Amino acid sequence: MDERVHEHAEILVDWSARVESGDNVVLSIGPDAHELAVAVAEQLGERGANLLATYSSGEIQRAYLQAHDGDFETDPAHDLALAREADVFLSLGGGRNTSATADVPGKKRQAYRKARQEIRESRYDSRWVSTVHPTRSLAQQANMAYEEYQDFAYSAIIRDWEALADEMAQMKELLDEGSEVRLVSSETDLTMSIEGRTAVNSAASVAYDSHNLPSGEVFTAPADTEGTVHFDVPMTIQGERVQDVRLEFEAGEVVDYAAGQGEAVIEETLETDAGARRLGELGIGMNRGIDRYTDTILFDEKMGDTVHLALGRAYDACLPEGESGNESAVHVDMITDVSEDSRLEIDGRVVQRNGRFEWEDGFES
Amino acid sequence: MDERVHEHAEILVDWSARVESGDNVVLSIGPDAHELAVAVAEQLGERGANLLATYSSGEIQRAYLQAHDGDFETDPAHDLALAREADVFLSLGGGRNTSATADVPGKKRQAYRKARQEIRESRYDSRWVSTVHPTRSLAQQANMAYEEYQDFAYSAIIRDWEALADEMAQMKELLDEGSEVRLVSSETDLTMSIEGRTAVNSAASVAYDSHNLPSGEVFTAPADTEGTVHFDVPMTIQGERVQDVRLEFEAGEVVDYAAGQGEAVIEETLETDAGARRLGELGIGMNRGIDRYTDTILFDEKMGDTVHLALGRAYDACLPEGESGNESAVHVDMITDVSEDSRLEIDGRVVQRNGRFEWEDGFES
Repeated sequence: MDERVHEHAEILVDWSARVESGDNVVLSIGPDAHELAVAVAEQLGERGANLLATYSSGEIQRAYLQAHDGDFETDPAHDLALAREADVFLSLGGGRNTSATADVPGKKRQAYRKARQEIRESRYDSRWVSTVHPTRSLAQQANMAYEEYQDFAYSAIIRDWEALADEMAQMKELLDEGSEVRLVSSETDLTMSIEGRTAVNSAASVAYDSHNLPSGEVFTAPADTEGTVHFDVPMTIQGERVQDVRLEFEAGEVVDYAAGQGEAVIEETLETDAGARRLGELGIGMNRGIDRYTDTILFDEKMGDTVHLALGRAYDACLPEGESGNESAVHVDMITDVSEDSRLEIDGRVVQRNGRFEWEDGFES
Repeated sequence: MDERVHEHAEILVDWSARVESGDNVVLSIGPDAHELAVAVAEQLGERGANLLATYSSGEIQRAYLQAHDGDFETDPAHDLALAREADVFLSLGGGRNTSATADVPGKKRQAYRKARQEIRESRYDSRWVSTVHPTRSLAQQANMAYEEYQDFAYSAIIRDWEALADEMAQMKELLDEGSEVRLVSSETDLTMSIEGRTAVNSAASVAYDSHNLPSGEVFTAPADTEGTVHFDVPMTIQGERVQDVRLEFEAGEVVDYAAGQGEAVIEETLETDAGARRLGELGIGMNRGIDRYTDTILFDEKMGDTVHLALGRAYDACLPEGESGNESAVHVDMITDVSEDSRLEIDGRVVQRNGRFEWEDGFES
C-alpha cells in the first residue's frame, strides 16, 4: 500500500477527528475508497475505537431513488439511532463515476434530503470529517492522469496543518472584528453583513470546527446580502456541470439568477426551501497546496486566490451561542476566482487584492 | 446486468425477507457484492422500505482486529442502536478473498464475537436473511470457472421454493413427532434427543423461520448427544481449511476431538465458551439443486444426501416458546456425506438410507 494512504488515514483519525479509545465511529466508505478504509480501520483499531462501516454508493442510491415513489419516510428510526449514538462520523468519498446519480430527478433528491433533516443534524453534532480517496474517477473529473491526481491530492492533504492554522488565524481575526464584507471583481459587487458572526479557521480538524480534509479556508456566515456575484469557476453540482452562475441579491435573498450551463440545477437548489435562497457561507480559500481546479468542491473551495459562497445551511460554529443561522436542507458552494482585478474589503479596508493578502509580499492596499 | 441478479434480488426481498413499505432495512454489502446490492436497492425502493447500507469487508475487519489490543467494548452503542431499530437485516456476502482474515488470531476473533452478543441477538430478532453474490473468489474457493460458478449458484438460488417447502414438510413432520435421532455411517454412530423440539422447514424465507438464501434443509436443535461422528466433507472455517473432523460426545458434550487438517480451528471453536462444546443444530440437506461441494457452508449444508451438525448456538425457532436452547457465541457447521453406507433413524425407524428418503423411489427401509 502507498505510504501516503497510511499518512492520510493517520491525519484523518488523529489531527482531524481526534479519535480516542471508546469512541463510537461510523466510517462511511465509497466503493473505490476501500484501500483508505483499510488504513483508517487500522488506525481506529490501534486507538481502541469502535468501528461500524457503512457503504456510500451513488449507484445504489440511484437504484433506490429511481424505484421509490418519492414519498420518503421522515428520519427512519434505524438511521437516526445510528447517527445519534455515533461520536465520530468519517466519510471516505470515492466512487467509480462522479455522475452516478445524474439521471435522478432533482426533486426526488431534494425530497430525500428533506426527509432526513434530523439524521443530518445529529451527524453534524458528532465529530464529523469528510475526505476523499484519490480515485480514477476523481482524476478523470479533474482532467488528470491517475498518478498525477494522486500527487495533487496528497499534496493538498498531507501537510503542516498547524502552520497553515497559524496563517489563517490572521484572516479569522479580521473577519471576527469586522461588520461588513464587500467583494468586488470584474462582474461582481457584493456586500454582506458579518456583524456578530464568528469566522472558522478551517484547519482540517474538529478542534478548529473544521470538518473537511483537506481544508485550508476561513469561513463565516454572512447575512443581508446585497448586489451581484459571478461565479466563474466551473463545477459539478449533484452530478451536473454548472458554469458561469450569476446571482442577484436584495435584502439577503436571491431575486434573479442565470447560468451559462446547468441553470436547472441552480433552479432546483433555490426551490428546495426558503433558506436555499439565502447565503449560508462566505469562505476564503487559503490552501496554496491546491494549485489548480479539479472540479471537486472539497479541493476547489480551499484553493488560494479564490472566494466561495454557499446557498443554504449556515454552520452553527459561525453564530452566537444558541442562535441558529440560515437553515436549509441544502448547502451548495460556488466559487469565484479573485487572483486578478479583484479586492476584498472589510469595513472599507482592502484586506486582499488580486489574491494577495495584506500580510503578504506584493500586497497593494 | 445479468437478469439472474434481478431475480436473485427479487426472491431475497419478496420470498425471503417479506419486505414491506416502511420497513427499516440494513443491507450489509460485501466488497464484491455491489451489483447484487444495486438490484436489491431497486427492490427496496419499489417497496418503499428505508435503506441503510453497511459494508462488510474481511480486509477492513482484519486491519481493525490486528491493530486492536483485543479488549473490545461490549456491544458499542451505535452498533447496538442500529441493530435494535432494524426490522430487516439482509447480508449480501461476496469479497475478493475468502481468506482475508486468515492471519487474525482465533482468540481475537472470538473475543470480538463475544463482545457483540447483544448486537447479534438483536439482529436475530429481525427478519434477517444471508445470501451471497457469486464472485470470482467464491468460484475459486469452489474450484470452478467464474461462469460455471454463476450457473451453479443461481440454480441453487432461483428455484420453486414453494414446491421444495412442500417436500421438506414431510421431513419436518417426522422430526417433530420423533424423540430420538440416530445417524449411522461407516465412521459415525451418533444418538441425539429431539424430544419436545420443533424442526424448521428451512425454505429460504423468514415466513418459515429460515434465514439463508439458498436454503433447502430441515433442521432442529438436538440435545444429550452421545457417540461418535466423522465429518468427511472438507470445508473452510474462519478462513482455514478443515478436513476429516472427528468428535466424540458424552452426555451432550464433546469429550474428544481430532481433525485431519485444521485441528487448531476446532480447538479454538470448542474453547469459546461452554455452549461451543454442545450441538446447536442437526440439519438434513434437501436442496438437490446443489449438486456438488463448493466449500461454502451456505451451499454445502443444503445439499441433498448430506447431514450437518453445528457446534454452538441453537436457533430459538426449534425450542418450546420461552425456552432458550444451547447458547454460545459461535455456530460452526460441519457436514457428513450420507449418500452411501448410511442410515438416519427416528425412534428406530429408518427414514433415510443411502441418501434416499422414505417417500422417494428406490428407498429401502
